[in-house]
Amino acid sequence: MKQKRFILQESEIPRQWYNIQADMVNKPQPLIHPGTKQPIKAEDLFPLFNEECSRQEFNQTDRWIDIPEEVLEKYAYYRSTPLVRAYGLEEAIGTPAHIYFKNESVSPMGSHKLNSAIPQVYYCKKEGVKNVTTETGAGQWGASLSYAAKLFGLECAVYQVKISYEQKPYRRNIMQVFGAQVTPSPSMSTRAGKDILTKDPTHQGSLGTAISEAVELAQMTPDCKYTLGSVLNHVSLHQTVIGLEAEKQMAMAGEYPDVVIACFGGGSNFSGIAYPFMRHTICEGKKTRYIAAEPASCPKLTKGKFMYDFGDEAGYTPLIPMYSLGHDFKPSLIHAGGLRYHGAGAIVSQLRKDGYIEAVDIEQNDSFKAGVLFAKSEGIIPAPESCHAIAATINEALKCKETGEEKVILFNLSGHGLVDMSAYDQYLTGQLG
Amino acid sequence: MKQKRFILQESEIPRQWYNIQADMVNKPQPLIHPGTKQPIKAEDLFPLFNEECSRQEFNQTDRWIDIPEEVLEKYAYYRSTPLVRAYGLEEAIGTPAHIYFKNESVSPMGSHKLNSAIPQVYYCKKEGVKNVTTETGAGQWGASLSYAAKLFGLECAVYQVKISYEQKPYRRNIMQVFGAQVTPSPSMSTRAGKDILTKDPTHQGSLGTAISEAVELAQMTPDCKYTLGSVLNHVSLHQTVIGLEAEKQMAMAGEYPDVVIACFGGGSNFSGIAYPFMRHTICEGKKTRYIAAEPASCPKLTKGKFMYDFGDEAGYTPLIPMYSLGHDFKPSLIHAGGLRYHGAGAIVSQLRKDGYIEAVDIEQNDSFKAGVLFAKSEGIIPAPESCHAIAATINEALKCKETGEEKVILFNLSGHGLVDMSAYDQYLTGQLG
Repeated sequence: MKQKRFILQESEIPRQWYNIQADMVNKPQPLIHPGTKQPIKAEDLFPLFNEECSRQEFNQTDRWIDIPEEVLEKYAYYRSTPLVRAYGLEEAIGTPAHIYFKNESVSPMGSHKLNSAIPQVYYCKKEGVKNVTTETGAGQWGASLSYAAKLFGLECAVYQVKISYEQKPYRRNIMQVFGAQVTPSPSMSTRAGKDILTKDPTHQGSLGTAISEAVELAQMTPDCKYTLGSVLNHVSLHQTVIGLEAEKQMAMAGEYPDVVIACFGGGSNFSGIAYPFMRHTICEGKKTRYIAAEPASCPKLTKGKFMYDFGDEAGYTPLIPMYSLGHDFKPSLIHAGGLRYHGAGAIVSQLRKDGYIEAVDIEQNDSFKAGVLFAKSEGIIPAPESCHAIAATINEALKCKETGEEKVILFNLSGHGLVDMSAYDQYLTGQLG
Repeated sequence: MKQKRFILQESEIPRQWYNIQADMVNKPQPLIHPGTKQPIKAEDLFPLFNEECSRQEFNQTDRWIDIPEEVLEKYAYYRSTPLVRAYGLEEAIGTPAHIYFKNESVSPMGSHKLNSAIPQVYYCKKEGVKNVTTETGAGQWGASLSYAAKLFGLECAVYQVKISYEQKPYRRNIMQVFGAQVTPSPSMSTRAGKDILTKDPTHQGSLGTAISEAVELAQMTPDCKYTLGSVLNHVSLHQTVIGLEAEKQMAMAGEYPDVVIACFGGGSNFSGIAYPFMRHTICEGKKTRYIAAEPASCPKLTKGKFMYDFGDEAGYTPLIPMYSLGHDFKPSLIHAGGLRYHGAGAIVSQLRKDGYIEAVDIEQNDSFKAGVLFAKSEGIIPAPESCHAIAATINEALKCKETGEEKVILFNLSGHGLVDMSAYDQYLTGQLG
């Protein structure tokens, strides 16, 4: 019998994260303070983020960062996640390619987001912080932070993009089970929210807006830190546990990927799966392709410009050197809420600029078509975000079918879609645009 | 670091199911044909069920039944499931007990039901059947059958209990992603459904009613077989893969359970976790307790009577020797749809009669209280059904706290509750009775 899943024992789970900044030929350009126009240093972030993550953000020298024992202990609640050979999907496509996926959907919150929520809350607790706050789109990050906060005994407040709050009540309920306070954004509880609602009372929310609100809450509240689920360097760092595991598991399968694919919102799951493999491309010239799959309605890597831009709508964050569609860009209301973000993060933008990363954009209907094919052949209903990675994977596998190449394709299944079934219902009944 | 999860490699997944009938001191009493009053034989079931499952139903001699290679191949899509030490829950309770749970919620359909759906559909296909049909309560069995049917290329029709169809649209959507035809029951599409609706147009459905409809469809349709997700002996047989894995995993942890607990609807997940351990009790006198956790609103093992009763509401099935509340019993509309069944199956009823099995009943509010505590301490939101097992586990662990005993408690987490968040919402907002 052909082996289907490759799983590490608990003792084999990586004990360090991989910090790609140390290996980058061209380091990411500095974050800039919008007032002084000076580069931001770690200390400048201390009022907003915990200190350890602030330092990780700017660490360009240490290739490996130890994962704290307390974080490893919580990782063990669900890690390693399986690496799976997608025999079913290969057969459905009729491709000679070998398709593998890293199944992050088995995390208790249903996505990869917990990988960074756990260390972020852990560092906050270690530094005496009592409350954490954040924004969330589809709710996967918010659910993960809510749970991590509960694990370490901190209070948690989440601003959820209003359209997702309404479209996905189950996600809100999940956060509430973990005791989080969930507010639809834009809200009247912050100045940023009020300003936006005053201009546009029907504003359906965006990640940029929700970030503004959470940042404001953190700044106004003692003992409260802000946390972010994507975009920033320290988030990508934590997510490398995905790719580091996958590397060991691919070795168990006796293979190495020719192509690594992930969907792309702010870059966290893409970085997580890609960077550990990319170190062999940067350092040893290994010929692997890295493909970011974006939604066609929010195509910052394929159609955005490299610029200094704010991370949020109201302009509270530092200026970030990144591919962006502009911080006031309003993406259409696709179901892949986690991909509705205007920018791409400093590291990934530099790597894209330096030619390491390809990007493709996927129409919403095509993404669900791919997701349904995957569900039927592999039995897992993917998150609307992950459907984009699957669509890109199928496109690559179809090219292999034309050329007859037995390429090894690895993609990250960032999450499951069990809480997004209304989106599938709309797709199946032809109600998606 | 203390090991949290115990996982078997693919090569260690059991290759045989355990047939407890071979070891039972008192064999289960025969099924009876309601017309002739004669004992039913395997051949009598051939018109309704596939032949192999019909034979397994009556097999009282073979202790071990080979799992077909094609079934093992599909099991490998998600098995082994993890055995998890519930350190978080132990700490939350402050108990000296060692609590373990078998996490069947990581199955792609979110519950243990796939363990029997795969072999049932496989045998149907092997015997040339083109369509399968079934009933479903909460939708976990229906989703699993829909997926298994898709895996083997068969068509699938599901009658879903109307209250669940309405309360849980996501489950219906999941079945539809896999191409199943889903009908709320009672429906006007069958004689059984028509009769019930004529008597009571507001009938909210029950498993017994939905079974009648599915059985009727199978009998009226060429090349169509009926499948059942619980109650019957062959279903329990397939589910023993849970306990057989758990036995190996408990050995990895260096422990053996003093108490084995599962929630109880028709008996499939209870049998699955319990029977492999019970063989050591029957054959070697091992002192392990087996506790079935029922909903207080449907307490067949605690308050039902041992009798010959129909498996369905309309009286289409053979008469089954079982603990029952009567086949026309109408359980209240609790969220644990999978536990709303009037009877208990022949094997488990005999074992209960012979003193091997204890039963407890759990109020709905107490079950959700236990589920929320579990979610907060272990990060997994349990299915409303599984909450009953957790409540019973907590009760046992609290007794250990009183006595100071370090008992080893193993329970089956039959599924996750991510598609049941509206139930949690009602619980958290005090809307449950």
